[in-house]
Amino acid sequence: MADPSTALPVAVRPAGTRSHLQDAVREAGGRLVDPDEARMVVWTDVSDTEGLRQLLVDAPQVEVVQLLWAGVESFAAEGLFDDGRTWACGKGVYADPVAEHAIAMLLALMRDLPARARATSWGPQWGTSLIGGRLTVLGGGGITESLLGQLAGFDVDVTVVRRSAAPMEGAARVVSPDATLEAIGDADAVVLALALTDETRGVIDAEVLAAMRDDAWLVNVARGPHVVTDDLVTALRDGVIAGAALDVTDPEPLPDGHPLWTLENCLITPHTANTEAMAVPLIAARVRANVQRMTAGEPLIGLIDAELGY
Amino acid sequence: MADPSTALPVAVRPAGTRSHLQDAVREAGGRLVDPDEARMVVWTDVSDTEGLRQLLVDAPQVEVVQLLWAGVESFAAEGLFDDGRTWACGKGVYADPVAEHAIAMLLALMRDLPARARATSWGPQWGTSLIGGRLTVLGGGGITESLLGQLAGFDVDVTVVRRSAAPMEGAARVVSPDATLEAIGDADAVVLALALTDETRGVIDAEVLAAMRDDAWLVNVARGPHVVTDDLVTALRDGVIAGAALDVTDPEPLPDGHPLWTLENCLITPHTANTEAMAVPLIAARVRANVQRMTAGEPLIGLIDAELGY
Repeated sequence: MADPSTALPVAVRPAGTRSHLQDAVREAGGRLVDPDEARMVVWTDVSDTEGLRQLLVDAPQVEVVQLLWAGVESFAAEGLFDDGRTWACGKGVYADPVAEHAIAMLLALMRDLPARARATSWGPQWGTSLIGGRLTVLGGGGITESLLGQLAGFDVDVTVVRRSAAPMEGAARVVSPDATLEAIGDADAVVLALALTDETRGVIDAEVLAAMRDDAWLVNVARGPHVVTDDLVTALRDGVIAGAALDVTDPEPLPDGHPLWTLENCLITPHTANTEAMAVPLIAARVRANVQRMTAGEPLIGLIDAELGY
Repeated sequence: MADPSTALPVAVRPAGTRSHLQDAVREAGGRLVDPDEARMVVWTDVSDTEGLRQLLVDAPQVEVVQLLWAGVESFAAEGLFDDGRTWACGKGVYADPVAEHAIAMLLALMRDLPARARATSWGPQWGTSLIGGRLTVLGGGGITESLLGQLAGFDVDVTVVRRSAAPMEGAARVVSPDATLEAIGDADAVVLALALTDETRGVIDAEVLAAMRDDAWLVNVARGPHVVTDDLVTALRDGVIAGAALDVTDPEPLPDGHPLWTLENCLITPHTANTEAMAVPLIAARVRANVQRMTAGEPLIGLIDAELGY
């Protein structure tokens, strides 16, 4: 049992929705309280930014807000991060399953699995291998770190495009965003693993698609608006690139009847790189860690940079 | 140019079919000759066992026969390996792409990609991850070695079932075939990476399928007859296991109208774990290596054990 006099007071809200998170707070020695007594709030509803704003107005003593997601642009758009509190998110928590999904989708494309899944007859010999190939990853955060680790056994030459020029373990080279066109020009595949910001919105447009090889693949496990959807539809129709695998789309959910649904060289998963079944144990572990760290006065994991918005 | 007086005389037959292999012989310092002058024969037609038998009768001086495939059971069945010659095959050459195919198919099943490929509408959140999971591999040869290397970044607990009890790098444990039922009982997935012999034919039957978890996956990148097809059809229909991915089938090619084609939890690829595009550079490298080794009097790679038949 946590000592009530020293146990960190934590509110998990909206109430009653996430018992595994309440368990995590208790397991870490925290004490579940109402928001007006809390030093930390764990906020569990990604769609209710207004509810969180109101909670924080009513509970000015809250020092730390823990969000559960890696993508927190809806909260950034509301300007919530500028309140002088410490904000933490699920950054890095979901990196491993998301990177795995990127590999699953890329290998599926290279080995023609979408067509095989639709087939009812023995088909032609066709398929390519990632082994010994060249991959370019846009973004150099947690997903890319996980991706590089998972690809270690595949003898892949990886170029990472990111703002920081610092090398990354497992990447053959790291280049800056102004070198994007060169970095994708000879790649077998391009993987999007970026945060969504004003600078990365629409980063994959007709010009970038045209710079890719016509036998190259595009994989998006980041956010739908990184890709200019109409440009991608045209590129897939015209054979500008070989194909695409999208776990995120713009608009999302992708509406019935959208042209992407009928393009045979487009594989779509409904934002399932990281499903509830995969996420629950991972985010519970993050909440446990941050309750323990705050209790011990240590820096939290997954801190949001208010200026960057993620 | 190879010195004609010392260059190894090699015949590539049936003639004219594989110029990249003739290139490989020349690049390794060999000399292309007719079979009646050859010390080594590179045989290129997997379906013409009788042609090879006749060639060897007519060319008794041939010392080494180089086959191009990892699976050489059709030659074993004809008793060709008992002639006192040295026989080599493509064992190990194709291991990397075949292991990659096993991972591609397993991740595709776990992340529901066959259903997503058929969908024309945003679907439900569903999918599981291999990360932190348990995998059992039947067979402990080259494909398994490659598989263990490729899985190194996925934090998978791997049990290998094989005759030799020697540990394998990357495997949590190696057990003998008489422990198969225990080894598969708690696995998230079972991968078949065996040679086809009298002992391994039909190794996956109703009893073994029943011993698997009902949410477990089966992946076969070895040979079709390892699986009793009718037993698998029943298991997939009745939910005895979650699903299967087959790169090889029995019969093969799988005929149109076969029940496996219509089972939604069965993904079939038409023996494309290792396609011509992937294989050509790999087998050419093996032929080069063995011509060089025989020239230097060194042991060849990929030797066939006449008694084991592979």
